[in-house]
Amino acid sequence: MGFEQAWLSYRMIREDSEWRGIGRIYADEDDFIIGNAVRELQKAWSEMTGAALMLCPDSQKTHQAGSIIFRQDEGCGPEGYHVFEEDGNVVIAASTDCGWLYGAFELIHQMQMENPLSGMDIRKEPVMPLRMLNHWDNMDGSIERGYSGNSFFFENDEILIDERTVTYARLLASVGINGAVINNVNVKDAATWLITDRYFDKLRRLSEIFAGYGIKLFLSLNYAAPVELGQLDSADPLSEEVREWWKRRMQLVFGQIPNLGGFLIKADSEGRPGPFTYGRTHADGANMLAEAVEPYGGLIIWRCFVYNCKQDWRDYVTDRARSGYDNFIELDGAFRDNVILQIKNGPMDFQVREPVHPLFGGLKASNQILEVQIAQEYTGQQRHVCYLIPMFKEVLAFRTYAAKTDDTVMDIVSGKTFNQTKCGMAAVANTGNDENWTGHDLAAANLYGFGRLAFNPSATAEELATEWIVRTFGKDQEVREVLLFILMNSWKAYEMYNAPLGIGWMVNPAYHYGPSVDGYEYDRWGTYHRADHAGIGVDRSHHGTGYAGLYEEPNASMYDSPESCPDELLLFFHHMPYVHKLHSGKTVIQHVYDTHFEGVELVDEMVKRFEGLEGKLPDKAFGRMLERFQHQKEHAREWRDQINTYFYRKSGIADEKGRKIF
Amino acid sequence: MGFEQAWLSYRMIREDSEWRGIGRIYADEDDFIIGNAVRELQKAWSEMTGAALMLCPDSQKTHQAGSIIFRQDEGCGPEGYHVFEEDGNVVIAASTDCGWLYGAFELIHQMQMENPLSGMDIRKEPVMPLRMLNHWDNMDGSIERGYSGNSFFFENDEILIDERTVTYARLLASVGINGAVINNVNVKDAATWLITDRYFDKLRRLSEIFAGYGIKLFLSLNYAAPVELGQLDSADPLSEEVREWWKRRMQLVFGQIPNLGGFLIKADSEGRPGPFTYGRTHADGANMLAEAVEPYGGLIIWRCFVYNCKQDWRDYVTDRARSGYDNFIELDGAFRDNVILQIKNGPMDFQVREPVHPLFGGLKASNQILEVQIAQEYTGQQRHVCYLIPMFKEVLAFRTYAAKTDDTVMDIVSGKTFNQTKCGMAAVANTGNDENWTGHDLAAANLYGFGRLAFNPSATAEELATEWIVRTFGKDQEVREVLLFILMNSWKAYEMYNAPLGIGWMVNPAYHYGPSVDGYEYDRWGTYHRADHAGIGVDRSHHGTGYAGLYEEPNASMYDSPESCPDELLLFFHHMPYVHKLHSGKTVIQHVYDTHFEGVELVDEMVKRFEGLEGKLPDKAFGRMLERFQHQKEHAREWRDQINTYFYRKSGIADEKGRKIF
Repeated sequence: MGFEQAWLSYRMIREDSEWRGIGRIYADEDDFIIGNAVRELQKAWSEMTGAALMLCPDSQKTHQAGSIIFRQDEGCGPEGYHVFEEDGNVVIAASTDCGWLYGAFELIHQMQMENPLSGMDIRKEPVMPLRMLNHWDNMDGSIERGYSGNSFFFENDEILIDERTVTYARLLASVGINGAVINNVNVKDAATWLITDRYFDKLRRLSEIFAGYGIKLFLSLNYAAPVELGQLDSADPLSEEVREWWKRRMQLVFGQIPNLGGFLIKADSEGRPGPFTYGRTHADGANMLAEAVEPYGGLIIWRCFVYNCKQDWRDYVTDRARSGYDNFIELDGAFRDNVILQIKNGPMDFQVREPVHPLFGGLKASNQILEVQIAQEYTGQQRHVCYLIPMFKEVLAFRTYAAKTDDTVMDIVSGKTFNQTKCGMAAVANTGNDENWTGHDLAAANLYGFGRLAFNPSATAEELATEWIVRTFGKDQEVREVLLFILMNSWKAYEMYNAPLGIGWMVNPAYHYGPSVDGYEYDRWGTYHRADHAGIGVDRSHHGTGYAGLYEEPNASMYDSPESCPDELLLFFHHMPYVHKLHSGKTVIQHVYDTHFEGVELVDEMVKRFEGLEGKLPDKAFGRMLERFQHQKEHAREWRDQINTYFYRKSGIADEKGRKIF
Repeated sequence: MGFEQAWLSYRMIREDSEWRGIGRIYADEDDFIIGNAVRELQKAWSEMTGAALMLCPDSQKTHQAGSIIFRQDEGCGPEGYHVFEEDGNVVIAASTDCGWLYGAFELIHQMQMENPLSGMDIRKEPVMPLRMLNHWDNMDGSIERGYSGNSFFFENDEILIDERTVTYARLLASVGINGAVINNVNVKDAATWLITDRYFDKLRRLSEIFAGYGIKLFLSLNYAAPVELGQLDSADPLSEEVREWWKRRMQLVFGQIPNLGGFLIKADSEGRPGPFTYGRTHADGANMLAEAVEPYGGLIIWRCFVYNCKQDWRDYVTDRARSGYDNFIELDGAFRDNVILQIKNGPMDFQVREPVHPLFGGLKASNQILEVQIAQEYTGQQRHVCYLIPMFKEVLAFRTYAAKTDDTVMDIVSGKTFNQTKCGMAAVANTGNDENWTGHDLAAANLYGFGRLAFNPSATAEELATEWIVRTFGKDQEVREVLLFILMNSWKAYEMYNAPLGIGWMVNPAYHYGPSVDGYEYDRWGTYHRADHAGIGVDRSHHGTGYAGLYEEPNASMYDSPESCPDELLLFFHHMPYVHKLHSGKTVIQHVYDTHFEGVELVDEMVKRFEGLEGKLPDKAFGRMLERFQHQKEHAREWRDQINTYFYRKSGIADEKGRKIF
């Protein structure tokens, strides 16, 4: 399938723009990454000005105005840059190839925004060292939780490399993403064989393309590979034979794919194999692999998403929310330096609202990556619009109280709190081989925003949305205002008509789309709402599972008491009567009714405004979005009516405003 | 996969049995069916006595005792027989080959039961003209709602014919089944091509094998075949072109497969094409096909399972239960004589408890087949034991009041009420390529019982179960008593721990296994329980959807009032408070609790008794059953706890007996 250029789809800038005064670029193309930077600038110039950007040998640089010049600046960090105007020229200063590439994209960004060239002086360093995408792509071409078509990495157990691969790398680099795990964390079948010579040639080519854009290739690893590749009987991390196997294997792998960044591992989770099989800890498992990849500078990224997925719904004691913490907290400090623990933003699984994972702040001596999901598994599956950057901002701003200052999640995963460098943020990717990459055109704002946010977490969600809108659809004011209104209200709206007050999980099992209040209530996944005729919620206070106490104070006390617990998480932490008064002054049940009616009204307003953009957006994109908005309008009603009806029937309490409930 | 002989697995009879005195059979093998009868008897004799039954030419018959003799008896109807002892010989008298074959199986039956030979005098005619199996087998080898492995008719879009095919025909003939539709009523993909020369050769061979056992081969037909086979733009039943297409096609089909019995059609139902597409009636559609097959004596069996499967759950007016009636009642009398309407036993879809379909008694001038389902789609999927003959007996005994006398469902589908000959009973088959045919060994009792019941509906469920037990597992008294206890209690137990009081549908959507009280509540299938904090049930009285009024009086009035409505169907017809007192003296809610606790206790008792049979049943069969019983025990608890918890949470009313509810 063809593909579009997303936010790198350039349009002509004003005839009188000072950017048109730039006509030359001085560089030596011999360096691979610089070469890509030059080509990016030439493409951008050609498409935004209609004129060519002439490439001249670096040695012929003059002081004549109108040129782009690359300059060495050891004051810039490894991925930082300093882009500025100097005597009518543009200087891209950096200390590394990657810095120059990022500087080039910064320039393109400024030009797309039509910001002034004169006086431009932008100095940036990425705040998080690791800014990664996790693709859950299977080698048969399907994507687990993919809502944008099939994989563009895999098909029929083969690796695909084509023009789209390069454009993918360009898009990532343009927003500062520097790592990509291309295969699903659930490593099965052919994917287990990615670390064998069956795939080395293609992986090496892929890693080289990525390297040209400052991206490290990572793979998801099958913990049981020594067994499943048929060579050993065991994957015991303390077995000398197993350790040797991994060392030899990694020597082979890194010998064949020198640019490889390392591996992501989901172990002992949802049926995946892991060290528990052998009575060993996650530290044993991770360290064994870390030791094997260490000589090559490889990283082992170990997921903390470990819980009992065969819980009995009748069991009120076991609490899935606790499991990540309980499984890992004792291991803090036991991991080798090249192990990173990857922790989901919340303790459950990417619900529309969760508290921050208590491992953030709990762990004090382990490298950490914050995992978020821009694949909208539980947030509308790229049929509903749901701009997630505001949620990520809240997570990053959360004070963990793990230290006296600099204790937010952002501080931790930026390395500031514990003075670390192997940390950052990863997003489960929302891409596929759809023409527009992300199914819903507006979902691309999450891909864009994620990269930009990891690079610079102090950017606001509005700023990032605005940038994305302008770069994707141009500077039309109405387009900007309407799409910004939609994006900035979308998470709020989705939360309003979804499961209320932080309780989560009221979705259809397995495929996770559409309402089903009891869908997970009597199932084995540890995801319950415990609603009865009088009330709803899970008691995670010290009277209940004690989960609230996993946080540092004062968070623990805040969550532990219904009086101080924030409304939006009340039912996550407490089982409350329907007639309980929230801080908002409304009862729980009236809050349910009001948010569900108002959420639909908000969607209606979004859709109404969107429809006014007809003719102002590319027809194809407008058509795709319109279809999705029409569905969202209808489907938001389905959410509203099912949730309201469920609680009305269960509680017998009527809506104060007498609106229609079935 | 290998296969067993089910109830045709013979064991030695007593050493002193008088049956051992029979040593010869007089027959001319030239007739195909007689040949099969002879071979059946020889096999049975060899395996039950260890001695051969010597075949002698019919012309050499003497009056010496110890022989089996075939005799012409025009007093027997087309499928009837008279089997009796005469001077130490056995006479099988009949007027047709099929009668002789059935007589031979009767003899084998008597011998398996070790009933006395002296004085034997059995004269039987089948009561229902058509006794059919409907297989929902797909041509890729899967079976829709199949719980016993894959299809033994199809694999990879090819037709399978092997030793199992013959054994299948033998099993059917042995219980009097005389028709089989081998492919799924949802006709798609390759199955549409069954009426093309791609499959004629194999179908002809299959139909010949069937014919040798008195079975007519039927096929399910794709109503849109003229379009989907790519030859016409329309399937409009009033289009001359379409009618001609079908006539030519049927000439071709019956020319190639002369033994074909006709076709089963699911039209305008659950997404299948039909005459509605062209603004025509079901009579238009059925009659067009009937006209085309009429020259060849073919039958068109037209399913009445037509309803709106895209209902809005918010719609309290539309009633799926009404739909079959509403769609067909006006057409009564409009169908050609070789059309038969096939009507499910209840108005919904094979739930564990439903009222009898109101078309029975409603239709007075249409041929009718009663469709039941021995595939245990909603009754435990052959993992729970559920002997369904008691349910079918109730359905057959239901007085419709369509006539002053002889007005039961049995009378109607036997042809007695309206003096018809194209009528009978069909069962959705529970077979697959599992070694034991039916997954659960005890599920074979449903296959056996169905055939025997259609042949002779006045047999009791206990009699049929006992026959099946003895024929399958021998005469051991404990085996007989225990298995009879299990079979006779199994439907009752399943109903007890299932959805209460006739409401149905509290299952997991799509795969229909295991409890999910709200699984269908907010869905599009017209299957709702409407439970709220105060009560539960669907008002189908004259205050509600008016469905009760579709029955003839006095049934209509009986169902219309909660006072006279039988307890077991109360929630099917009425929305009742949980505190309503049933005729049993219990409240609705206490009934729910009691039946669910007691249902599990009954299962425990069944399993306990079963476990005592170890060593008395073949190891393999015992092992298979034990595994299923262990699962049923656990799964019955899941049903109990989910249903009880749901209603306790919703109603807030505690169990009077204080048992554990979660």
